[in-house]
Amino acid sequence: MLLELPTVARVGDSIDRVNTPALLLDLDAFDTNIHQMAKLARHGGVALRPHVKAHKSVAIANAQLAAGAVGICCQKLSEAYPFAIAGIRNIHISNQFVGTRKIEMVTELARHVDLSVCVDHPAQVNALGEVARQHDVRISVLPEVDVGHGRCGVTDVDALLGLVDGIAQQDALRFAGLQAYHGGIQHIPDWQKRRKAALISADETAKYLQALEARGIHCGIVTGGGTGTAEFDIENGVLTEIQPGSYVFMDGHYASLGWEGEQQLQRSLLIASTIMSVGHPGKAICDAGLKSVAVDSGMPSVHHDTRGLRYVAANDEHGILEIAADDTSGMLGRTVLLVPGHCDPTVNLYRQIVGFRGTRVECLWDIDARGLSQ
Amino acid sequence: MLLELPTVARVGDSIDRVNTPALLLDLDAFDTNIHQMAKLARHGGVALRPHVKAHKSVAIANAQLAAGAVGICCQKLSEAYPFAIAGIRNIHISNQFVGTRKIEMVTELARHVDLSVCVDHPAQVNALGEVARQHDVRISVLPEVDVGHGRCGVTDVDALLGLVDGIAQQDALRFAGLQAYHGGIQHIPDWQKRRKAALISADETAKYLQALEARGIHCGIVTGGGTGTAEFDIENGVLTEIQPGSYVFMDGHYASLGWEGEQQLQRSLLIASTIMSVGHPGKAICDAGLKSVAVDSGMPSVHHDTRGLRYVAANDEHGILEIAADDTSGMLGRTVLLVPGHCDPTVNLYRQIVGFRGTRVECLWDIDARGLSQ
Repeated sequence: MLLELPTVARVGDSIDRVNTPALLLDLDAFDTNIHQMAKLARHGGVALRPHVKAHKSVAIANAQLAAGAVGICCQKLSEAYPFAIAGIRNIHISNQFVGTRKIEMVTELARHVDLSVCVDHPAQVNALGEVARQHDVRISVLPEVDVGHGRCGVTDVDALLGLVDGIAQQDALRFAGLQAYHGGIQHIPDWQKRRKAALISADETAKYLQALEARGIHCGIVTGGGTGTAEFDIENGVLTEIQPGSYVFMDGHYASLGWEGEQQLQRSLLIASTIMSVGHPGKAICDAGLKSVAVDSGMPSVHHDTRGLRYVAANDEHGILEIAADDTSGMLGRTVLLVPGHCDPTVNLYRQIVGFRGTRVECLWDIDARGLSQ
Repeated sequence: MLLELPTVARVGDSIDRVNTPALLLDLDAFDTNIHQMAKLARHGGVALRPHVKAHKSVAIANAQLAAGAVGICCQKLSEAYPFAIAGIRNIHISNQFVGTRKIEMVTELARHVDLSVCVDHPAQVNALGEVARQHDVRISVLPEVDVGHGRCGVTDVDALLGLVDGIAQQDALRFAGLQAYHGGIQHIPDWQKRRKAALISADETAKYLQALEARGIHCGIVTGGGTGTAEFDIENGVLTEIQPGSYVFMDGHYASLGWEGEQQLQRSLLIASTIMSVGHPGKAICDAGLKSVAVDSGMPSVHHDTRGLRYVAANDEHGILEIAADDTSGMLGRTVLLVPGHCDPTVNLYRQIVGFRGTRVECLWDIDARGLSQ
């Protein structure tokens, strides 16, 4: 009998049967999140273009599109391929890139999908325009403006006008609007402070728009925003399109922020782990370590715990749990559900996500773009 | 024309052409490391059983076996599958496990390979023995003893004897010796202090061995050790087998330790990234972030830098670099080589590793067990 890679779960199984560590998705909470964000955007009159970097899954992108999303955002070019292969036809790359291999990917993608990309330097515009012309493809380009993040994007109007002029000089490129994203403010814990920061960002964005309008340049699309600011981005009325990603999962970090508005997103992402060693008093060792949960936003927390369990350290393939009481009897073999601090790099560690409803496995969705960071 | 996932590199290409972020392996340094460790073990009269959790690659395991390794170690059962499928026939799982799905994997693997596993609780022995008997497979079992690590393993002789007795009562199980691994001391920076800690660990191991010998129980295998202590483990003469993994790569953390012995392992693992945005004075943004480099052991360092570049923060898909001078001219598009702090979780992020010699890509090796943590 030939040996095949072990499955994580089978549809119809009890979730107790999943092969831990496993990435679980509570489908009721997931559905709620998908529909809440779609409704928020629809009522606010903005387009919803979910960021797939959070989930990297074609199945989830299709659920978002079915709920009314206009297309998807990818952070990297290679990340877009599985979605393009699956037939998703409207893709925005919310990022810059440089170099021959990257431009080859842009022209290849542009032959298959309506592609838009960001730029923040004239060299990117020239390389893109030249190669797109040679390959006879059309690409929509959105200069990125820095509205406080301090990462990518131009920082003054002259630089922006230079990019817009450069795009106009390239037959194969089309100026489609602006990207204005402030990643830093997504994570401000206090809801009112986050709201104020989003307003400052929106004002920054508006200044760039006004400078362009004064020169008769209209921005069809103004795209940006994220899970942390989506409700404010809509209220501020500057963006025409929002790019939230994490809202489908509400990881430990996002769930820990203040949420005082109508939007009440629900935690849907969990990691199932098993306690596989209990040799030391007050300590239990589970099978989910650094390769099963990202720790850049802190250690995972223990979900629905009744024994005072705390996940205190991650080794490569072990999680170290402390228990309030010394007694570990009955702990061996117990399933521990973990809430990852940061969804994006956690999901990227898994081949599949196990969707469940109640106690039953309902679906297995591939993380199609896992590891595609080029 | 159908769209296919983009390649990372092609054999024969210049390494300047790799699709960044890419995981690079300097094959000259790699060869040196493979042969140094093989020689160390051979001269020391111990068996070398490299841990594949560091690289998860069949090609690298085969190179280790060709250099004289007796078999491989895996940390998880699912991790062993790609190696078993590729025909590697001697596999030790250096870890415990509990639960039906895990036992199913053990018996499945044991039908295809010479399998040994660890235990540290009677419940593990009983479950394993029962199911192995039902499936008519034979499994070698090595109780793990805690020699200071404080993670897995029994902590006293009585518990060890209980496990040995339990194994003896199961027809399908064979007592094969002990595992004694102290992960904590692998990372002691000072070479002499690390040596002393390894000696204390060896003494602890010896106590367990003596207690067994006094009862006429002989341990055929005493396995443990890692990259940080391999030379001392051999010198101490207690282990019959060493399990180093990271030695093939010598990541940023291991390379930062003191190495005063004959063994001088070389850094072989690098990440190629590209600077793709330079809009802010004194700052450059590269395309390798949290999904391309593990940061649990700190930020990556910049390899062979001449511009005072420092990698200061990792976003999901961006690395934030600071430059000593404000002037970023000429930086856009430049390749930056990064040294990851911790190899194991970094390698696990990639589909392939790009082997190069000089400036040419010589091979592309799959990370076959990527994401297999079950």
